[in-house]
Amino acid sequence: MTISTRPVPDSSSASPSLIALDWGTTSLRAYLYDAHGAIVDTRSRAAGVMHVPGGGARAFDAVFEEACGDWLDRTPGLPVLAAGMVGSAQGWREAPYVAVPAGADALVAGLITVTSSRGATVSIVPGVIATGELPDVMRGEETQIFGALENDPMLGADRSGLLIGLPGTHAKWAWVMDGLIERFQTFMTGELFAVLRDHTILGRTMRASVSPDRAAFMRGVSVARGAQRTGLLATIFSTRTLGLTDRLAPDAQGDYLSGLLIGHELNALDAMLAERGIALADQPLRLIGDDGLCARYVDALQEFGHPHAQVVAHATERGLWRIASRAGLVRTDGEPAFADQ
Amino acid sequence: MTISTRPVPDSSSASPSLIALDWGTTSLRAYLYDAHGAIVDTRSRAAGVMHVPGGGARAFDAVFEEACGDWLDRTPGLPVLAAGMVGSAQGWREAPYVAVPAGADALVAGLITVTSSRGATVSIVPGVIATGELPDVMRGEETQIFGALENDPMLGADRSGLLIGLPGTHAKWAWVMDGLIERFQTFMTGELFAVLRDHTILGRTMRASVSPDRAAFMRGVSVARGAQRTGLLATIFSTRTLGLTDRLAPDAQGDYLSGLLIGHELNALDAMLAERGIALADQPLRLIGDDGLCARYVDALQEFGHPHAQVVAHATERGLWRIASRAGLVRTDGEPAFADQ
Repeated sequence: MTISTRPVPDSSSASPSLIALDWGTTSLRAYLYDAHGAIVDTRSRAAGVMHVPGGGARAFDAVFEEACGDWLDRTPGLPVLAAGMVGSAQGWREAPYVAVPAGADALVAGLITVTSSRGATVSIVPGVIATGELPDVMRGEETQIFGALENDPMLGADRSGLLIGLPGTHAKWAWVMDGLIERFQTFMTGELFAVLRDHTILGRTMRASVSPDRAAFMRGVSVARGAQRTGLLATIFSTRTLGLTDRLAPDAQGDYLSGLLIGHELNALDAMLAERGIALADQPLRLIGDDGLCARYVDALQEFGHPHAQVVAHATERGLWRIASRAGLVRTDGEPAFADQ
Repeated sequence: MTISTRPVPDSSSASPSLIALDWGTTSLRAYLYDAHGAIVDTRSRAAGVMHVPGGGARAFDAVFEEACGDWLDRTPGLPVLAAGMVGSAQGWREAPYVAVPAGADALVAGLITVTSSRGATVSIVPGVIATGELPDVMRGEETQIFGALENDPMLGADRSGLLIGLPGTHAKWAWVMDGLIERFQTFMTGELFAVLRDHTILGRTMRASVSPDRAAFMRGVSVARGAQRTGLLATIFSTRTLGLTDRLAPDAQGDYLSGLLIGHELNALDAMLAERGIALADQPLRLIGDDGLCARYVDALQEFGHPHAQVVAHATERGLWRIASRAGLVRTDGEPAFADQ
């Protein structure tokens, strides 16, 4: 890791220092940072790893050139860091997983590089694997987690015992201790919701709602919480039967089902914490993800007695910057400037 | 209910006495019975309630005529009994649910009729509803349950305290006491398996197996059983991660996932029985359904300590005959002759 004297802000803020890519399954987001870690430009592309035409290194290179080529034209030699499924076997180049417990240093040590057609060196962040009877994996979330840990005012220096939730298609809950990802668990909550709505009988009676129906959502959470032992398989059909009996309107059924699934996810989290003697209600935690979805989790966590769930903004951009800094890709001793965004 | 002297078998066995229809969501099965309740002819059509062209009474009538018209040509005036989704709001005519506790007499009292274009009277069996905080419904399974109860050698006269499992797209578990369906629970196990395989990331690494992989299935059951408190959402992703780590072959992943889901269904059943102070392992139970699927449940139940699960054959045909007899649609005091099939 290279530490240099921080440049004078006024003279440097316009000069780019890093391109970072959040390149997941369904989309690519590219960020251009100045020397203080402030984002000066950003792009989004639908070319997620599953949608790169043809796949293969050439196709990834072409997407990268289209998205970021002009940035590199203007500032040749800019370092490039990428995180997410771009480092999977189906991505640009595979970055082997690092095992838990894993900290930022392990991610830096596990960086692999690929050289683009124009000669740019792209460093790819490895995912994290938890081995054991049932292994689990993440790619991209590790970067968000370290972005959230950076500058967390509640953590102090020790950074111990924090639970981080990352709602989404494949929701993750990670337990972070002393700056290391100790363990984590994937819940297919978002993907399960989508297929239940789009491909099962439950979707047939649903009507899209104009705005989120918070009461229906909370009703689902409450039903799930009351069915911790009987579980998800025994409750999801109620989405239909409450509709059949005129006790749940068609445009409330989607939010009810969402509440059921998130409630069952929190049941599992509650049980996992209880095994370790920890009460979910007392556990400091952070949420990272889409604002609307995080708001649902904040509400659902209140049903579980947890009033303090905080949502961390810009975790991805912070994490990419932090790993790039730690890897010596950018020369800075400064903190990211997201407060200025 | 009309009871007549049983006719002499030799002279009557060739003369039809009843047409019965098992008309569900995805298919229609029609049975022609002789006067002893033996089936002398049967037809299958893909025209399930969701696949009747155009829907509406005329379309149902046309499917019925095509499937059974020649039977009625040969024996005009034959009584017709139908069970299943044909009695739903999307069916030929809606037969309102009867509420639990429901016995065969309640089903008979709830029969509704529709007259076909040729003037045949078709009686439709009502479904059963369990009301409460989370209502539940069945259509067709009630007929199978009463078919299974008839002549059960393990039950004796009291017919009390029997658990009946009906695996399938929407699996049901019903608690039958003194000949009444007391309560039941729907599990969307089969439909969930299908959408996870066909529409989620889990299916992407699966390869169809040449024959069922019993070891992989039992591994899934065992993993689910060990995760009773953390539940389904926390285990299904292991189908993928075990594959990624070369610990579960592509052609074993489908059976493993099937084991996970059925294991979680039995976890729920176990928890529900435990709430009533009953141990699943000691509970007499019967299974009704597809042979291969029932065999999976027998295996899974053994993992839960239940060595005695018995599969009841011909429950649908027995149940239709029993309800027709009880309703006086057929004149018999005899028992169905399925042992002769």
